[in-house]
Amino acid sequence: MSLIYVIDLLGTFAFALSGALVASDKKFDLFGVIIIAFVTAVGGGMLRDVLINAHPINWIGDLNYLWTILIAVIVTFLFKSKIAHLSKTMFLFDTIGISVFTLLGLEKGLAYNLHPIVALIMGMISAVFGGVLRDVLTNKIPLIFEKEIYASACLAGGISYLTLSYLGVTENIIFIISALVIVLIRIISVKFHLQLPKIKDDLFGKTS
Amino acid sequence: MSLIYVIDLLGTFAFALSGALVASDKKFDLFGVIIIAFVTAVGGGMLRDVLINAHPINWIGDLNYLWTILIAVIVTFLFKSKIAHLSKTMFLFDTIGISVFTLLGLEKGLAYNLHPIVALIMGMISAVFGGVLRDVLTNKIPLIFEKEIYASACLAGGISYLTLSYLGVTENIIFIISALVIVLIRIISVKFHLQLPKIKDDLFGKTS
Amino acid sequence: MSLIYVIDLLGTFAFALSGALVASDKKFDLFGVIIIAFVTAVGGGMLRDVLINAHPINWIGDLNYLWTILIAVIVTFLFKSKIAHLSKTMFLFDTIGISVFTLLGLEKGLAYNLHPIVALIMGMISAVFGGVLRDVLTNKIPLIFEKEIYASACLAGGISYLTLSYLGVTENIIFIISALVIVLIRIISVKFHLQLPKIKDDLFGKTS
Repeated sequence: MSLIYVIDLLGTFAFALSGALVASDKKFDLFGVIIIAFVTAVGGGMLRDVLINAHPINWIGDLNYLWTILIAVIVTFLFKSKIAHLSKTMFLFDTIGISVFTLLGLEKGLAYNLHPIVALIMGMISAVFGGVLRDVLTNKIPLIFEKEIYASACLAGGISYLTLSYLGVTENIIFIISALVIVLIRIISVKFHLQLPKIKDDLFGKTS
Repeated sequence: MSLIYVIDLLGTFAFALSGALVASDKKFDLFGVIIIAFVTAVGGGMLRDVLINAHPINWIGDLNYLWTILIAVIVTFLFKSKIAHLSKTMFLFDTIGISVFTLLGLEKGLAYNLHPIVALIMGMISAVFGGVLRDVLTNKIPLIFEKEIYASACLAGGISYLTLSYLGVTENIIFIISALVIVLIRIISVKFHLQLPKIKDDLFGKTS
Repeated sequence: MSLIYVIDLLGTFAFALSGALVASDKKFDLFGVIIIAFVTAVGGGMLRDVLINAHPINWIGDLNYLWTILIAVIVTFLFKSKIAHLSKTMFLFDTIGISVFTLLGLEKGLAYNLHPIVALIMGMISAVFGGVLRDVLTNKIPLIFEKEIYASACLAGGISYLTLSYLGVTENIIFIISALVIVLIRIISVKFHLQLPKIKDDLFGKTS
């Protein structure tokens, strides 16, 4: 659990960094950068906790999230041009982040006695809603709706978790395998430019 | 109640369909389409339940909403070009949907001992907020703020419900009459292009 | 407390007025104007109460907020062109509004036994989130992210409140001094065009 907590904070850090970078590209002031970093990092878990009535919600119950976000903003402020060149490291952090967010969100849902499908959705909300909120607040169409198998990777990892859990596998092993499922699917999909199908036209109609 | 439940799911279906159509027009991928359909269909009731502290909230407490939304997405995927030609049927579904959403939301508010005016607002939130959320997530100014007597129809139906209720009319009759009020006002307003006034200038000033 | 309640409603009125003006400039219909006025005025407190699980939330527990907002919309409808010329009065109302919203939000947070830092954030959410929501719903990048020491003034007032409180100063005096801190910082920053720094580039890198 202790290692997972560290990875949780590492994921928070990566998400906050990505939010801070987007906000500073948009020429937001320091306050705007902090807000977007905050929302990107804890927005998903915050929505999850409000929806399942889990109080105190994530960042209210544990101040370490706030400190992590502040450090990420300071790092962005000091080293922005360097970070921009670390896109692979950032991508790895971010990917580890979504995998941990998904699985911790799912576990929290199960701990609150939600139906496994609802818990799975809570895992996905934890992982992707922060990014959606970041995009809405910076007035962009959420990236996640348009490209990349981001949410699908979370979904696959969540299904892996539930399946292995049902099969009675030990919890630590479930966690590691499912996190790997998410990380690998995302890396492979980005490497090979895999995308989900779009509904340009229906199966029986003509091309529009 | 059983019939109303069926109509509730029918409204959910219509809302999900309208969300899925908007999202696929925007070239969102399958995941994006599901999210927008979901948000359009249950976003209003979800906000209502969070605001009045009614847990488990709508779609968490009853998985039938999720299944209904998934079916709507599959239908959109299979028959998109056909549905686009069924705009009158869609409009009818949607109109029945908002009338049922309004009245069920209002009833839930009353059941939670809210002031009738707050319950009325909860009915309207149930009916219109899903569409607002759909528009915000697809980066458009919410349609409802600019044209069509959509919310006004819900308001009139809600007032009808509260008035008839105050007069001691039987509950089933109240529901039917108030639903008809919403449906008729909306149909008439769309047919005759009725709109609410705008504040282009004030009553005493000159035209800007 | 009674005077503060009056100022709270005055702040609500100022926020509702500012929302109604923005919405009517965007040519929203009457319903849209009411929604934006509502969201601007009570959106911050609403989010705060949902996050800290304080039910009934602000406008549900006290209908005076709704009446105040309705009056503001009627005033906008009747006197829009006149109000547009009262920008200094509006600015003063708005500034008094954010100072009271910040301090009342902070106090509510403390009353709910939140960590002082979280209570401080709750004060800021109360003061600024209504405006953020107004901007998101009218499809603009929230003003607060781009210019003006708006949030910083709230932050300074909140820190003043906590510090004086820690030093054992009488509550009324704490409130007055901290409100003045917010009002003065905002007035001075607007007068002298003070802004927070932006992260155009990092401290060690070259200018991009």
